[in-house]
Amino acid sequence: MKMSQNTLATSVVENIIPSVRALHPYSLKVTEARVKLNQNESPWDVPESFKQHVLERCAARAWNRYPDFYPQDVLRDLGQLHGLNESWVMVGNGSNELIASVLSAAVGSGQKVAYPIPTFTLYEMMIHAAEGVPVAVPLTDDLQYDREAFLRLADEGEAHLLLCTPNNPTGSVVEPAFVAELARRTPRLVLVDEAYVHFGHHDHSVLLKEYPNVIVLRTLSKALGLAGVRLGYALAHPSLTEHITKVKLPYNVGVFGLEVARELLADPTLADEAAQRLVRERERLIQALRPMPFARVYDGQANFVLVRLQQPGALYDALLAQGILIRNVSHYQGLAGCLRLSVGRPEENDELIAALHAWFAEEKNR
Amino acid sequence: MKMSQNTLATSVVENIIPSVRALHPYSLKVTEARVKLNQNESPWDVPESFKQHVLERCAARAWNRYPDFYPQDVLRDLGQLHGLNESWVMVGNGSNELIASVLSAAVGSGQKVAYPIPTFTLYEMMIHAAEGVPVAVPLTDDLQYDREAFLRLADEGEAHLLLCTPNNPTGSVVEPAFVAELARRTPRLVLVDEAYVHFGHHDHSVLLKEYPNVIVLRTLSKALGLAGVRLGYALAHPSLTEHITKVKLPYNVGVFGLEVARELLADPTLADEAAQRLVRERERLIQALRPMPFARVYDGQANFVLVRLQQPGALYDALLAQGILIRNVSHYQGLAGCLRLSVGRPEENDELIAALHAWFAEEKNR
Repeated sequence: MKMSQNTLATSVVENIIPSVRALHPYSLKVTEARVKLNQNESPWDVPESFKQHVLERCAARAWNRYPDFYPQDVLRDLGQLHGLNESWVMVGNGSNELIASVLSAAVGSGQKVAYPIPTFTLYEMMIHAAEGVPVAVPLTDDLQYDREAFLRLADEGEAHLLLCTPNNPTGSVVEPAFVAELARRTPRLVLVDEAYVHFGHHDHSVLLKEYPNVIVLRTLSKALGLAGVRLGYALAHPSLTEHITKVKLPYNVGVFGLEVARELLADPTLADEAAQRLVRERERLIQALRPMPFARVYDGQANFVLVRLQQPGALYDALLAQGILIRNVSHYQGLAGCLRLSVGRPEENDELIAALHAWFAEEKNR
Repeated sequence: MKMSQNTLATSVVENIIPSVRALHPYSLKVTEARVKLNQNESPWDVPESFKQHVLERCAARAWNRYPDFYPQDVLRDLGQLHGLNESWVMVGNGSNELIASVLSAAVGSGQKVAYPIPTFTLYEMMIHAAEGVPVAVPLTDDLQYDREAFLRLADEGEAHLLLCTPNNPTGSVVEPAFVAELARRTPRLVLVDEAYVHFGHHDHSVLLKEYPNVIVLRTLSKALGLAGVRLGYALAHPSLTEHITKVKLPYNVGVFGLEVARELLADPTLADEAAQRLVRERERLIQALRPMPFARVYDGQANFVLVRLQQPGALYDALLAQGILIRNVSHYQGLAGCLRLSVGRPEENDELIAALHAWFAEEKNR
């Protein structure tokens, strides 16, 4: 069986399953910028004292030893934030890892998973990787959840439902009463990705005890300012965590992540304070954007604002030329003309607002 | 559709795919002990200066920002260790994550994956989670790879082959000439998990350029003394990494892991020095074990020694009573009577040797 190296390299790709071969990579054009408003990160780093406590404890730990197989204190304290015991909690290397674990455990070949579109682009990839069938449910023209469509899917009872609320990149929300209705109607799982929960009004973890098919995902990457650490958690009925834990890799959170979690859990109000500061800035930004000649300013409940206009590419370029990096999402389904502006620190938002004013002023003169 | 909560909790489990429901959890009885020889960890922590450099750089990083989307310097430097450019390299949150990613990309429903048994117990779980079909190939009575069986599987050309070499928990090895033969005969993938490579004689990364269906997995958890950090990497032909990267979660290695990698790559000889020290201790331990009345001492090429005897449970308990924790693997297929002794620091090995002498002496008098 002699083949040239080129032929081999071509044929070796046939080992990749077709649904993965067909996927577009999750990619991010890495662009350096002075003002970074493109990834929905917290614009504030954690306090210096927070870092020092974590690093001191890391220095004292043995790096040659595996991290806790079952970090009981962390699981217990995370559960307590939601009135649940540790058997309801799983920690992950970012909440993405836990979404993937849930899908890996609950999505067999051909299993449908429905989610809103546009939404976080990684869901579709993760569903394909689990050999599931993605069912994209378009948001309404107003970029709100199509509730009727999700209720129909719940009644059909075939697809797991995956809801991002507040939704990225639109800020659209559903609330616990609606999710409860879905969970009552379907025997399938209802996953609620609450990455942006701290910036909104609804906490779906209150549903968990009554609806065992609801799973809530949380991340420390957003309100908490810990995107660099990779830490998230999932809350689910113990009869589910028992099985999901089996496909979650052991030791998935290292000593550093665990010490960060411990420091955070010593003062869980940190997240709320940071979120409140952010929400004040978001509201200020929205007030400043409203009078501008955007086709639309969407006032979602997340740490970003979505705007729509005729020439998103030109505005994106103009801002970048001034060192302000935002996210051009105009190629997303249903988002023609849209740009996503992560809310920054006050001085960054001032700069963004001034740059937008200037751009529209010039625009008028063109 | 009204159901009681108990009925709901029972029925919700039906959302877990049958192959996952049937899995036994990967579990570790967490036992505290003074001398910890149960997880094949490096008995030595990394140097204090190593930790300080890493922690200082972590302190200077923004934790609120996502880690590098594409950590080019780390990928480039890891590749250079093997004479490969960065397009051949993927980093992961431990090598387990990368094995899972490879399986996720290359294992569709019903795809066979063959591996030796006994081996690292996580493989079977990961194959099930990917909806593949595990094909366990028993080691010979002598606990060596059954080469004929693997060659037959290669000739059949159906199953991906997953080889752990040196194998955990037996220390058995294959060498590049044999893996090359497999890779020539099969169009499927040949995954070589080299977690214990630093303690043996063979480096399979030399095969990569000639055999594009070979994938090599490396971890920093063993020789390098970084089990607590969670860091591993995979080497594969760029035509494969292109697709595997799509199912690997973005930002899977956080700021801490990346700074550890950078510190390590500044002096890659650290691993070899630590491994040489370990191998000297392993050989000393084997010499001490040989005269003892074990049924068998297996001298593998890893950082542990496997022994076989009539009463493994009694010896395990006796050592634990003295604060020495080893791994009882006597329930693994083909390992009746076997215990796995991770090699410790010199004084720990002395203590183990003395305890074994004492136990066998008492044994004779019973």
